[in-house]
Amino acid sequence: MSKVKDEILEQSAQVRLENYLRTVAHLGHVEISVTKFEQSLWFYTEVMGLVLTETHGDRAYLRAWQDYDHHTLVLKAADTSEVNRIGWRVSTKESLYLFEKQLKEMNINFNWVEGGQKKALGDAIHFKSPSGVPIELYWEKELFVTDDPKLKSKLPSHPSKYTIKGVSPRRFDHVNIMVDNVISEQEWWTELLGIHHRYFVQNKEDIRLGSWLSRTNIAHEIAFMRNSNQNGAAFHHLAYYLDSPDELIRAANIMAENDIQIEWGPGKHGTSGAQFIYVIEPSGHRVEIWTGGFLMFAPDWKAIEWPTGVGELGLEMWGSKPPETYFTYGTKLGE
Amino acid sequence: MSKVKDEILEQSAQVRLENYLRTVAHLGHVEISVTKFEQSLWFYTEVMGLVLTETHGDRAYLRAWQDYDHHTLVLKAADTSEVNRIGWRVSTKESLYLFEKQLKEMNINFNWVEGGQKKALGDAIHFKSPSGVPIELYWEKELFVTDDPKLKSKLPSHPSKYTIKGVSPRRFDHVNIMVDNVISEQEWWTELLGIHHRYFVQNKEDIRLGSWLSRTNIAHEIAFMRNSNQNGAAFHHLAYYLDSPDELIRAANIMAENDIQIEWGPGKHGTSGAQFIYVIEPSGHRVEIWTGGFLMFAPDWKAIEWPTGVGELGLEMWGSKPPETYFTYGTKLGE
Amino acid sequence: MSKVKDEILEQSAQVRLENYLRTVAHLGHVEISVTKFEQSLWFYTEVMGLVLTETHGDRAYLRAWQDYDHHTLVLKAADTSEVNRIGWRVSTKESLYLFEKQLKEMNINFNWVEGGQKKALGDAIHFKSPSGVPIELYWEKELFVTDDPKLKSKLPSHPSKYTIKGVSPRRFDHVNIMVDNVISEQEWWTELLGIHHRYFVQNKEDIRLGSWLSRTNIAHEIAFMRNSNQNGAAFHHLAYYLDSPDELIRAANIMAENDIQIEWGPGKHGTSGAQFIYVIEPSGHRVEIWTGGFLMFAPDWKAIEWPTGVGELGLEMWGSKPPETYFTYGTKLGE
Amino acid sequence: MSKVKDEILEQSAQVRLENYLRTVAHLGHVEISVTKFEQSLWFYTEVMGLVLTETHGDRAYLRAWQDYDHHTLVLKAADTSEVNRIGWRVSTKESLYLFEKQLKEMNINFNWVEGGQKKALGDAIHFKSPSGVPIELYWEKELFVTDDPKLKSKLPSHPSKYTIKGVSPRRFDHVNIMVDNVISEQEWWTELLGIHHRYFVQNKEDIRLGSWLSRTNIAHEIAFMRNSNQNGAAFHHLAYYLDSPDELIRAANIMAENDIQIEWGPGKHGTSGAQFIYVIEPSGHRVEIWTGGFLMFAPDWKAIEWPTGVGELGLEMWGSKPPETYFTYGTKLGE
Repeated sequence: MSKVKDEILEQSAQVRLENYLRTVAHLGHVEISVTKFEQSLWFYTEVMGLVLTETHGDRAYLRAWQDYDHHTLVLKAADTSEVNRIGWRVSTKESLYLFEKQLKEMNINFNWVEGGQKKALGDAIHFKSPSGVPIELYWEKELFVTDDPKLKSKLPSHPSKYTIKGVSPRRFDHVNIMVDNVISEQEWWTELLGIHHRYFVQNKEDIRLGSWLSRTNIAHEIAFMRNSNQNGAAFHHLAYYLDSPDELIRAANIMAENDIQIEWGPGKHGTSGAQFIYVIEPSGHRVEIWTGGFLMFAPDWKAIEWPTGVGELGLEMWGSKPPETYFTYGTKLGE
Repeated sequence: MSKVKDEILEQSAQVRLENYLRTVAHLGHVEISVTKFEQSLWFYTEVMGLVLTETHGDRAYLRAWQDYDHHTLVLKAADTSEVNRIGWRVSTKESLYLFEKQLKEMNINFNWVEGGQKKALGDAIHFKSPSGVPIELYWEKELFVTDDPKLKSKLPSHPSKYTIKGVSPRRFDHVNIMVDNVISEQEWWTELLGIHHRYFVQNKEDIRLGSWLSRTNIAHEIAFMRNSNQNGAAFHHLAYYLDSPDELIRAANIMAENDIQIEWGPGKHGTSGAQFIYVIEPSGHRVEIWTGGFLMFAPDWKAIEWPTGVGELGLEMWGSKPPETYFTYGTKLGE
Repeated sequence: MSKVKDEILEQSAQVRLENYLRTVAHLGHVEISVTKFEQSLWFYTEVMGLVLTETHGDRAYLRAWQDYDHHTLVLKAADTSEVNRIGWRVSTKESLYLFEKQLKEMNINFNWVEGGQKKALGDAIHFKSPSGVPIELYWEKELFVTDDPKLKSKLPSHPSKYTIKGVSPRRFDHVNIMVDNVISEQEWWTELLGIHHRYFVQNKEDIRLGSWLSRTNIAHEIAFMRNSNQNGAAFHHLAYYLDSPDELIRAANIMAENDIQIEWGPGKHGTSGAQFIYVIEPSGHRVEIWTGGFLMFAPDWKAIEWPTGVGELGLEMWGSKPPETYFTYGTKLGE
Repeated sequence: MSKVKDEILEQSAQVRLENYLRTVAHLGHVEISVTKFEQSLWFYTEVMGLVLTETHGDRAYLRAWQDYDHHTLVLKAADTSEVNRIGWRVSTKESLYLFEKQLKEMNINFNWVEGGQKKALGDAIHFKSPSGVPIELYWEKELFVTDDPKLKSKLPSHPSKYTIKGVSPRRFDHVNIMVDNVISEQEWWTELLGIHHRYFVQNKEDIRLGSWLSRTNIAHEIAFMRNSNQNGAAFHHLAYYLDSPDELIRAANIMAENDIQIEWGPGKHGTSGAQFIYVIEPSGHRVEIWTGGFLMFAPDWKAIEWPTGVGELGLEMWGSKPPETYFTYGTKLGE
């Protein structure tokens, strides 16, 4: 036992403390620009059943009924459909300054956005990942509060009533980025931001097809999947979470009746054990609706390998094949 | 911004670091003694569909199909049905020594149990909470590994195959203790073990009826509920998690067909949003089967109050009333 | 074999043929008057998610999304909440005249209502059961047809799109009447209308608590339950059908969030095997939302007895008890 | 009104009566021969969770837990995997003799099999459809009765306990035959056996791809689908029914974990609105597991056309495509 005790003393407490404090806490939101603002807004509110917190200028702020924050999705009217920002809350109020210090050391360009400049957000740092993913770190964000009797629930655990129209997911879940080199992108996110590597898939040629990461206990908050065309990074999809396979089937029915193309699914990812459908919303972004999946509690979690022989089952364990587009199509990385 | 930076310097890095390291990571297992060993084993394996990892002497080691550990439940043949141990994994390999230091400072009796003395466990510290809950902290625990073709899955994310008999929960979820004073017990666990206070219910007389706590993102890993008889602490229940409301209904059917008394449910806790049934297993322990519920990601989560007017909805939001036994019956706290 | 052949000849073909033709085909609709028309209409359209076919004067015509008929429920603004009419389609176009003949023979008062006098209905015969249930038999009823793009589905099997708001049941299912004498009422309906007796429950005192009947293959289209107060017949409830237990749980959530009292449930009738919730709508009618249950195909089905010892399980097989009101409260039988 | 009354008199009561009596009541069972008896028996009992009523010589008699009959599936050990018999119960005890008379008039070969020659069956008539489907009509069949405490339920509506292992469907549902000419086969079954035509699909070339028929209220009891190879009739699949989409997802998981190939699904037939998976059992027969779907109550039901433009949605309304094998592979028509 003395050996372990010594290790504690060997390292600088200050360095170790800063490593603990300099992490993200969880994925917070995604901001996308959409070429068909009205149709996309219809999709997210009427078909998906998200709650519109407010519109402000050319932006709409949305959240699932149990998302506690002011928003988890921002739509911006634009000429191109792209992802503008992926926001992460950091783990303490000091973390932003430790990130600033680290970014400087790593010679990564960044800029501060002062609190209040962005709706509902406090101070934030903006920078990009090696593949060009626009990142936003923040500590303060307003919670959703309402006095609207149509939204306000008598149940204190419900930031707003369970939405009784559309798909009505419980909460925002994750984002997925298509990149040329999965391994290097994954390592950068894990090392800089403290987002744990959870599981990965090797394709038939034993090339890394995808890696999935989370800081919290959920299966993943961000994933990196290989672009088969190897022509650069793109936004693959954003995902909202449902409570059951049955609700997923209901979601598929809603899509079919309302002329929203289901690109793939219902299927089941072997990796996470989550059931899914992927749809393309009116402005061209891919949206995943998913449910189930396992949680990871071990503080020393080792990323699960889905090796080349069973990698396809990692993608879909019931036997269906993704369409070609799944490995090549995405919307742009913006800002 | 300088004010926050100053705070970093004001405190001792060593003290702050130790505070970060001296926490549990997650609930690991519960050990119970059972007066009807064979019938309880039948219940947990055939009706619940848990996997029997092994039996060893007078003990049976069990887990749900997606529990990664060697066991999450231990049954011990005995003359009294009681809970012998509630095991928590700590967050780092150094944490145990920091807990030792803290327990000494607080003058709490404890003892070390060397690795190997208990099946599948490394070094552990044993001590009791103010109400007498027998606690075990550990860092090392064997994972479940099998070569049995009936259990081994080809899917790398599955530590064993999805169990196709009985209720077949996905994973161990939480434990619940009945105590005379909820507030003081909750505060002790939060302060010493770093288990966050998530939500609480005030009863009609505005007395604290229950508090729910978790270190991870799930709704709770341990709860304390008020003993209406005010005659001491008891073990209220252990809980396993299902993937959907539909599976919960299936579980209720299985109980009804196999003469296992459903004490309460199906119902829905307003607090967590989880659906439940409570059953009494053959040796008298209460077991909850539950599904759904929300996750909490905010690092500065404020415990949600279900005040006296809506507290009953916190317990059950559809309107059913718990039986009297729910507030008075439990099995003993042992060891 | 010759014995059976002889039986064919022994009886008059004409009599036997008329017996075959003089039956109902299926339950068609229920007409209720409601004291709070606007609130009840809100309940049935927004909370239940029924489709409003049209309003006409003081009446609203409603149906579930897969009901093929113009309506399965009629609401009428009135000073009393009562059931005005329970409509059954007969099995052939000749059946009405055979019923007329039979009613005359039985000295039962009846009157013809000519086609067109009632919305969407052809000729109908009106009369009452011994307990006073207002019956309507008809052959012709308009199907639901729409050109409204919000309702019209591209899927030919869908008379209107799957409704994406509220509970959204698939179809109208059954009605239930509270009577003083279950046995005599059941026998009258089976003998006169050809509605098969499917199962029955004896209470603790071995008195008939309820009988359930259907002409089609579903568990029941009409039931008679004993009024504990023995003070006359009343309308117990109407029921719509959902596709899964999971949707039932969703329905319970919707009720809880929208201040609709759940009188009982979720529970499971042992008799039919169907899961249920009962709610009281704003004008005081009881509405059941149910799912599952078995179908009966045998042409010589023998009614299943739930004898006195297990009769309670027939009512609810998971162990919950109905509230007292369940055996005493109903709305009036009208017209 | 007098015109309709006249029609009653115009026709011969005897002829009309016989037309009413000469129909099937419902699909009863399917007998298949299997090349891998032990593996197929494992599949149907352990994976599917059917109840084994008994084995007798080279045959195994099986049923779902709520099937009331002695069996709904018979497996026979053989050198070829084929369908030997599709059994239908007739609507009255006189019906068999009326069918005999009709078969003679139509010059269709048939033979009587006396009661007792086949396990659990009374007298039966055997003959073949134009495409070669081996048909069995019967009136008497033993119900399932058991004293085995592992099978016997305390719940009178349950002929045996809900099965807590494997997929555990509620009941036998339907069979499907692949033929060269759908239209002529459908018309023969409707005219001779009184099995109503419920819905049909036209493919891209506006050729009849399939027709679905039932005598009862369910979506179909037998279907005829076009053999793309136009090389004769074959047995396409048999189907068992589950209570919910959630159970279907569970069934897919069970198949994936137990190396049973899912040929197609989960998907949703637009026609019936039922969700499905198709698997190939060890001896090569295709088995469908399905849930949901609508019921048809109208006595004058008009078959719903899924015309050439939307026919594919009739097959699968979420957008997935069946594999080529779905239109070409079947097992043989035997006996």
